[in-house]
Amino acid sequence: MTNGSKQVSGEDSLIARYFKPIATDAGAFGLDDDAAVLKARGEDVVVTTDAIIEGVHFLSGDPPDTVARKALRVNLSDLAAKGAKPAGFALTLALRSVDDAWLAAFAHALGEDAKTFGCPLLGGDTVSTPGPQMVSITAFGRVADGKMVHRSGAKDGDHVMVTGTIGDAALGLDVLKGGAVDAALAGNPAASEMLVSRYRVPQPRNALAEAVRAYASAAMDVSDGLAGDLTKLCAASGVSAVIETPLVPTSAIAAGLLARGVVNIETLISGGDDYEILCTVPEAKLEGLMREAGRAGIALTAIGRITATAAAPRFLDAEGREIALGRLSYSHF
Amino acid sequence: MTNGSKQVSGEDSLIARYFKPIATDAGAFGLDDDAAVLKARGEDVVVTTDAIIEGVHFLSGDPPDTVARKALRVNLSDLAAKGAKPAGFALTLALRSVDDAWLAAFAHALGEDAKTFGCPLLGGDTVSTPGPQMVSITAFGRVADGKMVHRSGAKDGDHVMVTGTIGDAALGLDVLKGGAVDAALAGNPAASEMLVSRYRVPQPRNALAEAVRAYASAAMDVSDGLAGDLTKLCAASGVSAVIETPLVPTSAIAAGLLARGVVNIETLISGGDDYEILCTVPEAKLEGLMREAGRAGIALTAIGRITATAAAPRFLDAEGREIALGRLSYSHF
Repeated sequence: MTNGSKQVSGEDSLIARYFKPIATDAGAFGLDDDAAVLKARGEDVVVTTDAIIEGVHFLSGDPPDTVARKALRVNLSDLAAKGAKPAGFALTLALRSVDDAWLAAFAHALGEDAKTFGCPLLGGDTVSTPGPQMVSITAFGRVADGKMVHRSGAKDGDHVMVTGTIGDAALGLDVLKGGAVDAALAGNPAASEMLVSRYRVPQPRNALAEAVRAYASAAMDVSDGLAGDLTKLCAASGVSAVIETPLVPTSAIAAGLLARGVVNIETLISGGDDYEILCTVPEAKLEGLMREAGRAGIALTAIGRITATAAAPRFLDAEGREIALGRLSYSHF
Repeated sequence: MTNGSKQVSGEDSLIARYFKPIATDAGAFGLDDDAAVLKARGEDVVVTTDAIIEGVHFLSGDPPDTVARKALRVNLSDLAAKGAKPAGFALTLALRSVDDAWLAAFAHALGEDAKTFGCPLLGGDTVSTPGPQMVSITAFGRVADGKMVHRSGAKDGDHVMVTGTIGDAALGLDVLKGGAVDAALAGNPAASEMLVSRYRVPQPRNALAEAVRAYASAAMDVSDGLAGDLTKLCAASGVSAVIETPLVPTSAIAAGLLARGVVNIETLISGGDDYEILCTVPEAKLEGLMREAGRAGIALTAIGRITATAAAPRFLDAEGREIALGRLSYSHF
């Protein structure tokens, strides 16, 4: 929906039917022009891009509404971690064919999420592809001049914090793939469903964005596995960390699977798709951040400390022994 | 290169090798963070998105440097037509595999164009796909508050103007596909090469953007065929137009092919990929616009007039007879 310039007749009618109704922001010009306008309002515009591909980031059988929500939410999660308030997004949709039922459900859910998170559709492009379907979103946020929260601000002694629970999405993917978790939960469809839902529909922590901006010394979202993403944050900050893995927040279902030995802690902290916020906070600001998280109704857990060495972060078990991780995160290449 | 959050180890090294060197803008943070910052400077941010897909918008055998330039330039062309000054772009690159030679050439050319057009790489995402390669770019421009040029401002009596020459890119695609044009130019490799180059590497008219903003009543870029795109501009403006097709600017090569009967005018005005600016200008502002085009060194030709009817635009031949067009533009769906 280039808002226009690449529009072709088939694409025009597709856009008119499915995307024009959800492009209600004034700056989208009803998707009738070649471009949109984002009002900056004297603030910095934070720009982030994440694409999801069928068979790689979502599964062919995933419902269209969850594909739409995941595509937008993985980007909203980045904005939240950067302390920015959502301002809008541009969509690139590569389709194999025009499947009306799929598109109707996709656009409807996208419109709902755009409204819920205050992040309107501004424009985009719809292209045909002979290959797997793809949804790429470039999302915009607003943050006060120079106030975007970086990965690089973590300091020796800072607390390492994470929102929500870690590992559920990776377990959900295992369920969808019929792995060990799926077998272990065979008698418990509600548990399987909860994990699958965590894989398919992330819960971005945008309600915590302003607190992250005000209190965090560094932040990023956890998308490729807590261990790997923390390693990146530490590298960007020139520090290390010691994580007490028993403190890493898990859902009751994940805790049960851990207790039964179906999975181990490595599965959880190196799995992807959590879309929680990982941030660091100096001792003096911990109370303020925790208070804001409480107000926002978002679980926030201290899992360790930043240390001043240049080594890789260490992950300790309940006895204080270092866990040797076979992998830190999920890699597509 | 999400500037981060989707980064995986293979992707990290790919980004470090090929894209970090060209992400020299301060707001890109060296692609080391999860997001970029675009400074708005009190102006509107114009947002446009165009994706190109292998086998659809470019051919598998196209050199990587031309793929990079086309991906960026089709977006720059939108910014030019909207009267906006380039400010930066986000890139989504879907790759089948990591081909170092291809990526090196792609990134190098992308960096060159980013520099030439003052449109820096701010961030993006690199994903693997089992399907055709895809490059999607969301580009940003700056324009004074409320001053983006729309499709919808054309008025009765305005001159219809177009930059450069029309139809060469469509002829170039025919050459690459071994069609009638290819056969007709068999003895003239320089001519074939010129047409192919027009298909592969658009010449966006960003040097005319400020003049378009100052003088044009409506504008868009010609990407899907002059006839179809003019029809869209007229529809958005609630007007019609009469075009004297003998006035439509063609290259000497295209004119030769027309004279020999290898192609007809319909081939030229319904072919895609021109990436010229189509705009309308009131009589009183024509001289000013022509003067600025002359200063910018960009050919600008009046090809007809806007009329106040609601009918579709009419295309007349040298004898003033209406040409019945079998199609208006190229459609992918």
